Amino acid sequence: MDFSLSPEIRELRDRTRQFIAEQVIPLENDERQSSHGPSEALRRELVARARTAGLLTPHASREMGGLGLSHVAKAAVFEEAGYSWLGPTALNIHAPDEGNIHLMEEVATLAHKERWLRPQVAGHIRSCFAMTEPSPGAGADPSMLATTAVRDGDDYLINGLKWFITGAEGADYAIVMARMEDGSATMFLTDMDRPGITLERSMDAMDSCFTGGHGVLRFDNLRIPATDVLGEIGKGFRYAQVRLAPARLTHCMRWLGQARRAHDAALAYTRRRQAFGKPLAEHEGVGFMLADNDMDLHTARLHIWHTAWLLDQGEKCNFESSRAKVVCSEAEWRVVDRSVQMLGGSGVTSESPVMRIFTDMRAFRIYDGPSEVHRWSMARKLVHLAEKAEAAQ
Amino acid sequence: MDFSLSPEIRELRDRTRQFIAEQVIPLENDERQSSHGPSEALRRELVARARTAGLLTPHASREMGGLGLSHVAKAAVFEEAGYSWLGPTALNIHAPDEGNIHLMEEVATLAHKERWLRPQVAGHIRSCFAMTEPSPGAGADPSMLATTAVRDGDDYLINGLKWFITGAEGADYAIVMARMEDGSATMFLTDMDRPGITLERSMDAMDSCFTGGHGVLRFDNLRIPATDVLGEIGKGFRYAQVRLAPARLTHCMRWLGQARRAHDAALAYTRRRQAFGKPLAEHEGVGFMLADNDMDLHTARLHIWHTAWLLDQGEKCNFESSRAKVVCSEAEWRVVDRSVQMLGGSGVTSESPVMRIFTDMRAFRIYDGPSEVHRWSMARKLVHLAEKAEAAQ
Amino acid sequence: MDFSLSPEIRELRDRTRQFIAEQVIPLENDERQSSHGPSEALRRELVARARTAGLLTPHASREMGGLGLSHVAKAAVFEEAGYSWLGPTALNIHAPDEGNIHLMEEVATLAHKERWLRPQVAGHIRSCFAMTEPSPGAGADPSMLATTAVRDGDDYLINGLKWFITGAEGADYAIVMARMEDGSATMFLTDMDRPGITLERSMDAMDSCFTGGHGVLRFDNLRIPATDVLGEIGKGFRYAQVRLAPARLTHCMRWLGQARRAHDAALAYTRRRQAFGKPLAEHEGVGFMLADNDMDLHTARLHIWHTAWLLDQGEKCNFESSRAKVVCSEAEWRVVDRSVQMLGGSGVTSESPVMRIFTDMRAFRIYDGPSEVHRWSMARKLVHLAEKAEAAQ
Amino acid sequence: MDFSLSPEIRELRDRTRQFIAEQVIPLENDERQSSHGPSEALRRELVARARTAGLLTPHASREMGGLGLSHVAKAAVFEEAGYSWLGPTALNIHAPDEGNIHLMEEVATLAHKERWLRPQVAGHIRSCFAMTEPSPGAGADPSMLATTAVRDGDDYLINGLKWFITGAEGADYAIVMARMEDGSATMFLTDMDRPGITLERSMDAMDSCFTGGHGVLRFDNLRIPATDVLGEIGKGFRYAQVRLAPARLTHCMRWLGQARRAHDAALAYTRRRQAFGKPLAEHEGVGFMLADNDMDLHTARLHIWHTAWLLDQGEKCNFESSRAKVVCSEAEWRVVDRSVQMLGGSGVTSESPVMRIFTDMRAFRIYDGPSEVHRWSMARKLVHLAEKAEAAQ
Repeated sequence: MDFSLSPEIRELRDRTRQFIAEQVIPLENDERQSSHGPSEALRRELVARARTAGLLTPHASREMGGLGLSHVAKAAVFEEAGYSWLGPTALNIHAPDEGNIHLMEEVATLAHKERWLRPQVAGHIRSCFAMTEPSPGAGADPSMLATTAVRDGDDYLINGLKWFITGAEGADYAIVMARMEDGSATMFLTDMDRPGITLERSMDAMDSCFTGGHGVLRFDNLRIPATDVLGEIGKGFRYAQVRLAPARLTHCMRWLGQARRAHDAALAYTRRRQAFGKPLAEHEGVGFMLADNDMDLHTARLHIWHTAWLLDQGEKCNFESSRAKVVCSEAEWRVVDRSVQMLGGSGVTSESPVMRIFTDMRAFRIYDGPSEVHRWSMARKLVHLAEKAEAAQ
Repeated sequence: MDFSLSPEIRELRDRTRQFIAEQVIPLENDERQSSHGPSEALRRELVARARTAGLLTPHASREMGGLGLSHVAKAAVFEEAGYSWLGPTALNIHAPDEGNIHLMEEVATLAHKERWLRPQVAGHIRSCFAMTEPSPGAGADPSMLATTAVRDGDDYLINGLKWFITGAEGADYAIVMARMEDGSATMFLTDMDRPGITLERSMDAMDSCFTGGHGVLRFDNLRIPATDVLGEIGKGFRYAQVRLAPARLTHCMRWLGQARRAHDAALAYTRRRQAFGKPLAEHEGVGFMLADNDMDLHTARLHIWHTAWLLDQGEKCNFESSRAKVVCSEAEWRVVDRSVQMLGGSGVTSESPVMRIFTDMRAFRIYDGPSEVHRWSMARKLVHLAEKAEAAQ
Repeated sequence: MDFSLSPEIRELRDRTRQFIAEQVIPLENDERQSSHGPSEALRRELVARARTAGLLTPHASREMGGLGLSHVAKAAVFEEAGYSWLGPTALNIHAPDEGNIHLMEEVATLAHKERWLRPQVAGHIRSCFAMTEPSPGAGADPSMLATTAVRDGDDYLINGLKWFITGAEGADYAIVMARMEDGSATMFLTDMDRPGITLERSMDAMDSCFTGGHGVLRFDNLRIPATDVLGEIGKGFRYAQVRLAPARLTHCMRWLGQARRAHDAALAYTRRRQAFGKPLAEHEGVGFMLADNDMDLHTARLHIWHTAWLLDQGEKCNFESSRAKVVCSEAEWRVVDRSVQMLGGSGVTSESPVMRIFTDMRAFRIYDGPSEVHRWSMARKLVHLAEKAEAAQ
Repeated sequence: MDFSLSPEIRELRDRTRQFIAEQVIPLENDERQSSHGPSEALRRELVARARTAGLLTPHASREMGGLGLSHVAKAAVFEEAGYSWLGPTALNIHAPDEGNIHLMEEVATLAHKERWLRPQVAGHIRSCFAMTEPSPGAGADPSMLATTAVRDGDDYLINGLKWFITGAEGADYAIVMARMEDGSATMFLTDMDRPGITLERSMDAMDSCFTGGHGVLRFDNLRIPATDVLGEIGKGFRYAQVRLAPARLTHCMRWLGQARRAHDAALAYTRRRQAFGKPLAEHEGVGFMLADNDMDLHTARLHIWHTAWLLDQGEKCNFESSRAKVVCSEAEWRVVDRSVQMLGGSGVTSESPVMRIFTDMRAFRIYDGPSEVHRWSMARKLVHLAEKAEAAQ
């Protein structure tokens, strides 16, 4: 057993920390941001800075232009990037591009990679992942997928409505999940400027950290050539798992950075602010919250490290990534909520960065599977394993 | 013991419920709102509707133009008004005016009442309460009051900086808390359009339900005639208690309405939205959240009723209103957080009203004394009572 | 609305408090107790004291020899009795006799009442309630009832196995729940010294406050004359509800007394015990626990009062008694757990009475329906009410 | 980073698991146990079995007769041993002997080791650690140490009262903590059969897993030669830290085994027991508890592993062992409490082993420093580190 990071990872982590502190945090109050995230201009400036620093798209393979980070290395670097809400955009490791890049590496053909993945890794284009649908379509239960793909000559015709499509506004290409006539699901690749794709609106969300916000996309007889199927026909749900297990974990990593930022802000504030004769931090009630924050942060970090290491060993980690997602999303949320409480009025206004972290993070307990769905899938797995163990005796 | 409401209160409660449903909720998406709350124009329209419905400023005395509600009656009516975030503004029972009206009734002279209270009760003017200060001034610990009042002839000169002054923008008059040369505190009344008062800025807050937002006010040699002292010199802290005990409780009432609204939205959604073969509400994990919501709502209501009844008996209720404030702010928050979770994506976007309730309500666990300060003051009281009981034996 | 108690109830409450302090607590360390509760000799001494004090079986009707207390009056008196773990036995209001007395009053014939109820109210005999069965019989799900009753001439023959039958050892009569050939359930009355009844063993339980412990009873062709059916054939499940709604609530009342006792012990200890330069109670972390205890105690009390009042109005309160049961069992448990924590080593040894309260109370979150069953039944009711309300529009 | 265990540790872990299953659990209902733990005869039988299996005192150095396990290896082995409440006694790794052996290895002279440590490692003798005192002595706050040591010729005379001295009854030697005339503290070694040592009584505790129970020891002019000072005069508090940091962690390891046992019992039961038409485990509400158990178990395990690894790197881990102690004691407790709830009636009776685990484990949140003391010491460290970091900038 060994909890140390290699010198290479430590160097990269420290360099990322410095980059975030010096190159990214100073831009946090830049006006080129809206409730739908940083503007494309701001994104390009951030990406340019990361490129200069040699930190761009570090999780992509070296072949495609990245640094080929292991999952454990990502754990170290992404936490640092997440310390600023602009950090993931700067490093090109924000959702959904981070996960899409991973999926494209695993599944896409060379031609698809050259066309879409290489410029994406270079920070020139962005993507979205069109899976979630409004009721009665696929929400927490992906099997309810309602968008259809029907063969038409050498093409497929896609029809359906998607929402909560993160990054939709301004995305250059999309991965679209659709139901086949036989009930299976397939992923399709398409440029976003094609006839039949309409961005109906961008949703008004509690968070504002995702470039391109969350869009509602309508597909009306969107025509996609059969050559632009991603991977194989009918393997959509399987690829969704390929994408999801690590994607869940990278959310945990980035938000760990944000949670640590909130904790640091609360710690600094409570050391300074006096009440009832001494600094807040010297009040036991406040001190207990600081200690609880530290415990939650470390718990999240340990789950991330362990799951990342398992992924590096080639494990699928469906169970472990579910577990890490629930543990981290809840622990990190508690940290941010406590930090707001310690900051008092400053925590519920823009006087501190924590208000923003609070509203940005709430949805993390919901997307990529709400806690309830993960708990249930974990329970079934625990029962299943017990049955197998019993049968083996 | 009797938990029933009188026919008069029930009638008023039902009428308020109907008024909110028919006259107020339809205005919730009115564009005359910003992150600093409803505009003055929208406020006037809402107030006009309440006036027509005979529901305006119901807690004010009949002498001043209100309905002279008891605390128990307020519990019933304010919960209904709180069902919409515009409801308290409509009924003229929003913070801080609601508490200021109560304080003015208790302490102000007839002349002050005619000048400021009567038009306020009629919904024509608004007020603010200038107590809270940035570090190192008075925050959770009011004894750190840093704004000074110095006698100058027949006047007092006020100097200092205040923030989190709810309703400051557009307020017609202010109650200003300042420290005297002997260390005691005094409340002063002043029109807001006087020289020496500067609204430096409106703060960017997580909530957006308070008319006039939360302002930063600077007093530079603000001159207030001695005749405009509110009540008596040196009794500022005592009056703050007079204001606070019921004001805490009315927050509990109004937010109970908002929490019930969130629960109702979650219940409606989970009955309709299918996942994994049945409506969400038929999943045990979701059903448990619905049951927990009901328990928390009822717990909050019972604490409100009990404390309101004690206030009606003439009790001061410093302890009981602290307790009710902690219990309600935490129980109501859990309801809203659970409702967001049940609503999934809809809960973290404007697809449902609950996202807004979530961001509006977070500060409730902080203002009027954070939970931690109330817990500590409760603990000291419990120890003190035990000492007294022991000494009596 | 009125939270005051009538002078009669207050007098009875105060007298009970004094009786417990002076006549019952001094017997708490009496050696005539085992892990299966107080011995019959100790029970008789306690009952004799309550009889002398005019406090015996106060919830029974005046006709049967009780004081005919309302549910609200019971709330006040039972909490006081519960302050000592011997108090309910002394007042003859312990489970299951308290609930059995209530059921017998509601359903039994005059002849049954004279034979069993009158001597029970007088404290001369005890009873048990034989419903719960080991797997695969009726546990949390009463519909799984496996004990059978088959008509045989003028009698019924009962066969089956029951466990967790509180008070079985030493009980004089039993109410037996059995399944009829048509699937319905019936309650039967029987003396315990009849052929066909075997007390297989008394279970080794965490609690030790129930006279007669918890027994395993086997019925082998137990013959019960048809005249000893309790109420009507086939109405067993309905009567179980008649018994349960108030019985759940009286558990809440008695355990509230125990929880208050634990809190009082913790408060006394933390005022006295020094650590790190001051009494424990002056440490914020401890003070917060004292405040939380007070909040939980008051929450439990308010739910009890409200539900008791509804029962007094003639409401069935299936929903409300479920809610009160969950809220009280969990809030009172938190109080006891926190009190153990504040007492430190004394809390986990017999140095304080709280260790015993802790082990006695844990099962309360399980019996009379575990929290999970009540939450689920509440959820279904909330959904049902919402459907009805929607249909009515 | 590497989460794998070496083949040697895995082999030892698996062998321990098998030993516990085959050699220890079958003795769990052996009658040679009381509320003060296993009898000496049972202990000797268990130790003999572990000796035969080559698993005795594995944490002791090879020089002294142990297996010289690293902290990480202990994490793996002790969790397995803890799966049965008799396991730690069998492997001679129970408290307080486990920690005393560690302390003796670190501090004792060769002569002391030959006299006391070697036979202890061989399982022939037992020890106790006499530090905790009743009020107003040293409880959670060790600085309140009241037992005195006064020089008298070549000896020291010890006077004072100790309680909660685990293993006192039947111990062969004791490590006694006493205050010197200059206010410093010293540890002394003494055989237990010396004049001046009185075991006043064994305390009646909630747990019954510790051999020798918890005793009250009185020292009346206990004479200890200066040569039997453990280590150096005046270093008592420092040695207490040497002992405590790893001792806290081994508690976490052993109790993790017990918590896993409780979870396994609940999982087996809920897979089997039907209610409302399906096995309990297929109810979402129950499934969520199973998932929460798994998360808590894994969180505890990760904290243990990480801290053990740091100890193996030579770190002192005062902060980290405090953190692990709070996290593990609370997470493992939640697992056991949930398991009781899932087991229903079986969980609160001896029908399952979980009732006993529940009562055995409650004190873990209190001894070796209650959660509150650790949280506060963590908070001070966090503030201190922040101050240092700020000063360094």
